[in-house]
Amino acid sequence: MALDSRSLAWATLAHKALPQRALVALLREFGDAQGVLGASHAHIARAVSPAVADVALAKVDPEALARTSRWLDDPSHHVIAWDDADYPQALLQLGYAPPALFEIGRRDLLARPAFAIVGSRHGTPQGLETAREFAHALGAAGFTIVSGLALGIDAAAHGGALGTEGSTIAVVGTGLDRVYPARNRDLAMRIARDGVLLSEYLPGTPPRKENFPRRNRLISGLARGVLVVEATLSSGSLITARLAADQGRDVFAIPGSIHSPFAKGCHKLIREGATLVETAQDVLGELCPGATPSHAPDQHMRTERSSDATKLLAAMGYDPVSIDALVERTGSAVQSVTGELVTLELDGRIASLPGGYWQRLGPKKTSRGG
Amino acid sequence: MALDSRSLAWATLAHKALPQRALVALLREFGDAQGVLGASHAHIARAVSPAVADVALAKVDPEALARTSRWLDDPSHHVIAWDDADYPQALLQLGYAPPALFEIGRRDLLARPAFAIVGSRHGTPQGLETAREFAHALGAAGFTIVSGLALGIDAAAHGGALGTEGSTIAVVGTGLDRVYPARNRDLAMRIARDGVLLSEYLPGTPPRKENFPRRNRLISGLARGVLVVEATLSSGSLITARLAADQGRDVFAIPGSIHSPFAKGCHKLIREGATLVETAQDVLGELCPGATPSHAPDQHMRTERSSDATKLLAAMGYDPVSIDALVERTGSAVQSVTGELVTLELDGRIASLPGGYWQRLGPKKTSRGG
Repeated sequence: MALDSRSLAWATLAHKALPQRALVALLREFGDAQGVLGASHAHIARAVSPAVADVALAKVDPEALARTSRWLDDPSHHVIAWDDADYPQALLQLGYAPPALFEIGRRDLLARPAFAIVGSRHGTPQGLETAREFAHALGAAGFTIVSGLALGIDAAAHGGALGTEGSTIAVVGTGLDRVYPARNRDLAMRIARDGVLLSEYLPGTPPRKENFPRRNRLISGLARGVLVVEATLSSGSLITARLAADQGRDVFAIPGSIHSPFAKGCHKLIREGATLVETAQDVLGELCPGATPSHAPDQHMRTERSSDATKLLAAMGYDPVSIDALVERTGSAVQSVTGELVTLELDGRIASLPGGYWQRLGPKKTSRGG
Repeated sequence: MALDSRSLAWATLAHKALPQRALVALLREFGDAQGVLGASHAHIARAVSPAVADVALAKVDPEALARTSRWLDDPSHHVIAWDDADYPQALLQLGYAPPALFEIGRRDLLARPAFAIVGSRHGTPQGLETAREFAHALGAAGFTIVSGLALGIDAAAHGGALGTEGSTIAVVGTGLDRVYPARNRDLAMRIARDGVLLSEYLPGTPPRKENFPRRNRLISGLARGVLVVEATLSSGSLITARLAADQGRDVFAIPGSIHSPFAKGCHKLIREGATLVETAQDVLGELCPGATPSHAPDQHMRTERSSDATKLLAAMGYDPVSIDALVERTGSAVQSVTGELVTLELDGRIASLPGGYWQRLGPKKTSRGG
């Protein structure tokens, strides 16, 4: 996109790296990203704690910000912020959604039901073929295939999904001005055209070891479920699967020979409760029980989401209430309640109170920003 | 064994093929097998219903009985009856224990903790090797390996267990004067020396299609758990696994390639709740959690059994009580309660009443027969 003031404001906020709760508080006070950046020192100091105010008012390195601006000058490059209609709803529910995502490609794909396929960087030829086949079939059924642009299974999954109705999202652990690993440069270019390259990291961010496991929570968070195709016991895919389970996502795994080190990670997941699948139809059967695969997922997901919010609001009443009480009243998992609370707070439907309490707001006070 | 009058009496009763409940009633009335056969027409007619009396008093085909007698003349051939100390306790609990089992070999193995390994008749070379390895390791850990003497996985399991501490039991679907399939003749001879050949069918019984699935309930019934190594979706091993689950036994399965038809049956079982295992240690970890494998199983099993009986007697009180009420009071599965009731009835500790009720007996009235 051409660089507008709203995008620049969000990019600037991304440079400040404020804690999620602090940023929510600032946005509620000042309406949107430009409002936060334009607020007076005195107003910010009144609105938030001194520690948050310090971070909010700190100067951003002008050189780094200039690099981000230059990156955003390319019309195919975007920053997608919390208050953007395209921002993936699935991430907002989790309670740790990056305020701004950097994106290249078909941003419309971010609104689709997504499914993650991950696995070993050193997959076997059979494993790579399995990843391609599952990605192609699930992409054709309407799911957008999310993976991490790594060598091996990840690359095979992206490749299998390219050209399908759902196509593919690569969530990477570097700034989007880099391709890591370099061997996937051609693949990344194809994804930039037909799919989405996505990162929470600022342009210029090099590959850093600690960023890849962090990135995994977005891969699983974006998706309805995660399939692990091949994984050794030390594979990062097991981290993604664990995050997925914590996020309430379905976890699937492909079995293999008991003598293959690349099956051991999958077998561990199955023993821990992941669903063993042999075909893409097995996955579709779990994700959309009783439904025609190509139409069901999207609808199913939307119904679930809005009914979750309605249920939670009903359970809140209008008195201050703790998360524990909400978990008890709704019977939902704590992470799902937390995620829903943040979404509702961004929507201005509820407010957070001191001591970890929440309260429902009567009339809609704050719009969803910008 | 040399043919004694007790064995002949049980063999004769086996020829009569009385329903289990009717035979229990006769044994309680007349003390033991010889007592039943020596009872007067009038006494039997008073003790049981006319239908049962008809079966009990019917003449046995003398030629068939003579064949059984000749078979029992071999000192290595035995009939093991309900009232025999060697009769497998695990079968008595199930509520459908054959009154007499025909046996060749080391009858002491029947008292050991057992584990079943079954699978396809057309196993892959890798599957056969897996069956051998698991059988050898679990046999070395003290488990007696039960299988069905079929070609393929069954034969490999028996072969792997021969020579180990636990050795092996082959439960066959024919009379023990036959070996089916003939290709396993050498294996059967080795099992007769180092293990056990076991059948509920009279000598002379040919291979009959309907007898093999029936036989499977004994394979699973004898065992603490059942491992399926390789199975197509139409394999009889899936029947054994289902029976095992119904009997409250643990079911284990070995995963494999999603492209192998011999893994599909195992994958189905895993999806339905069977435990995926990669090593014999995985099995031991489930069967004897936290225990030293070579000593734990036997103890564990005995404790479980006697505490089940104690719990059930306590739950009965001394008033007539229905099975449903016992299931509710004990929280145990209906098949486990039924099995325990039959065992206690055989022990003379309880009596069955009309209408499906049971009652605990005060002093021990009837000894366990002959």
